[in-house]
Amino acid sequence: MAVPHDSIRAVEWRDDHLILIDQRVLPGQLLHLHLHDAASTAQAITDMVVRGAPAIGVTAAYAVVLAARARYAQSAANWRALIREDIDVLARSRPTAVNLFWALRRMGALLERMEGDPVPALLAEAEAIHREDIEANHHMAKLGAALIEGGGMLTHCNTGSLATGGYGTALGVIREAWAQKRIQSVYADETRPWLQGSRLTAWELAQDGIPATLICEGAAAALMRGGNISWIAVGADRIAANGDVANKIGTYSLAVNARHHGVKFMVVAPTSTLDLSLESGAGIPIESRDPDEVLKLRDGGRAPGAAWNPVFDVTPASLIDAIVTERGVVLSPDTAKMRALMA
Amino acid sequence: MAVPHDSIRAVEWRDDHLILIDQRVLPGQLLHLHLHDAASTAQAITDMVVRGAPAIGVTAAYAVVLAARARYAQSAANWRALIREDIDVLARSRPTAVNLFWALRRMGALLERMEGDPVPALLAEAEAIHREDIEANHHMAKLGAALIEGGGMLTHCNTGSLATGGYGTALGVIREAWAQKRIQSVYADETRPWLQGSRLTAWELAQDGIPATLICEGAAAALMRGGNISWIAVGADRIAANGDVANKIGTYSLAVNARHHGVKFMVVAPTSTLDLSLESGAGIPIESRDPDEVLKLRDGGRAPGAAWNPVFDVTPASLIDAIVTERGVVLSPDTAKMRALMA
Repeated sequence: MAVPHDSIRAVEWRDDHLILIDQRVLPGQLLHLHLHDAASTAQAITDMVVRGAPAIGVTAAYAVVLAARARYAQSAANWRALIREDIDVLARSRPTAVNLFWALRRMGALLERMEGDPVPALLAEAEAIHREDIEANHHMAKLGAALIEGGGMLTHCNTGSLATGGYGTALGVIREAWAQKRIQSVYADETRPWLQGSRLTAWELAQDGIPATLICEGAAAALMRGGNISWIAVGADRIAANGDVANKIGTYSLAVNARHHGVKFMVVAPTSTLDLSLESGAGIPIESRDPDEVLKLRDGGRAPGAAWNPVFDVTPASLIDAIVTERGVVLSPDTAKMRALMA
Repeated sequence: MAVPHDSIRAVEWRDDHLILIDQRVLPGQLLHLHLHDAASTAQAITDMVVRGAPAIGVTAAYAVVLAARARYAQSAANWRALIREDIDVLARSRPTAVNLFWALRRMGALLERMEGDPVPALLAEAEAIHREDIEANHHMAKLGAALIEGGGMLTHCNTGSLATGGYGTALGVIREAWAQKRIQSVYADETRPWLQGSRLTAWELAQDGIPATLICEGAAAALMRGGNISWIAVGADRIAANGDVANKIGTYSLAVNARHHGVKFMVVAPTSTLDLSLESGAGIPIESRDPDEVLKLRDGGRAPGAAWNPVFDVTPASLIDAIVTERGVVLSPDTAKMRALMA
């Protein structure tokens, strides 16, 4: 089935290896990295060749296939233990997005049941994870779009095809709402310091024929006050049992401003992003990256002094109007509703 | 008197001309532009060689001296009318900061009273405007610092020596609070798209030995939630009669977040920033600049699509805990209190 406004895949298994779009050099270059082993795939995740919680999960699943092929060839006796070690390396590639650990657990569970060459079954499982992620995105897009009744939408970071198996979470809702003519305008935060909004979201939307307007994060409040925005939609890197959401730094500020301005706030994420082991967002580990990501200037110079560079923040459930998952929509999320969703 | 933590002057009259630090190339280069005529000074304001409402006012005052010298030499009969034309050109250099119009009105009023060579008296007036601005900053610094009782401070954009005649408005308060050991830490927003925080504030504070930590605007809410910030201090480009404040884009989002987190919010500005002709902030003209300021990427590329690039936003008086002026502090500002301040 042809789906409108959907032409990009960040993660792809072709023949015998993994292909990633190098998201660090977009939109200037559309470069594909061909990966043949688990260690370089782990490094690619750390280095943000691929980013976005669901895309990281899908990538890690394929990396387990690469690990399995190498280790099964290396040692007919010990391949299972060796693959487990590779899985541990992959699990250390980034700390916050829980989809990574979810995908590795799912691959690891299958691994424990395997006898003989594990590669075909593991590849089938990784492909299932990938396919299910895209299907979940299409389903969530319809559920999320149904909540929207006109106006403009604002999004943060990149939650599109580049951040997922394909189509996108929050950006999937925006694609669907645009296709259904439910929204009149799309705004995207540029999303400092990595500029995922400028480099990735603006590029994706341009590829797929959806006009979008970039703003600096600082302009979001003025935009809301101007009455142009009815919904903000964002993705998630980890959702705690009470509905608190860890997502790209800047999300929490948007949620506070959304509540202040009567703008609705939507989080779109597959249930692989849920971490019911954490009571609240206070338990979510927040990655800090190199201060140079903030300090380095366009002209090659560097701002003096120090920088604080947390990659994510936590938005409390009380500021969220809807969490949209492939299992359904949770309005005004709390622990009871989140547990009911997963029951 | 030696003042601690104060070593920079953005605007300087030396011998017979005006010298501006070119703020577009800081911190990589410390370049001084030597200006000998009003038209190039107007262009320097438009191009943001010099920026910051009070610094623009001081610069424009000196530019009137440059105009007077040229016009008086050009036409003994018609110099007054010719200088008025130059003042009109200067008045069109930037639209939002009202200190520009205030300084030009003050110079223009003196001009109307002059007979014979107007240059000496106009120069004395421009120097008075400059000196009074620095004195106002020192006074405001003490008034503002007195409000602060520990914790950390966050500021936005650049409101220091580079933005004023010298010492700074909000950054003057921070200099004073730091010297008095009233604060334990200083944070600065990088302030997209021009990065005045990274390029100017971090540089100024480093020059003057005050350790500061840069953050992206998106991290401000998480910083406040972490409990590290007791006060936010910002400058102003125009303050309406009811206490609404136009300031660098992103200020309003900080104010909304400050209220949400119980952080106090201070605006520091000389009364030359007040525009009592405007009932509220709704009447303040907001400059929009080239979308390329947002769209251009570090690698020389450009994000696809459009951008919205307002330079300022309006923070309603209801979100402001204190407006600090050289005439005194207005707590919880409203029209009656602002008019009483100016009576």
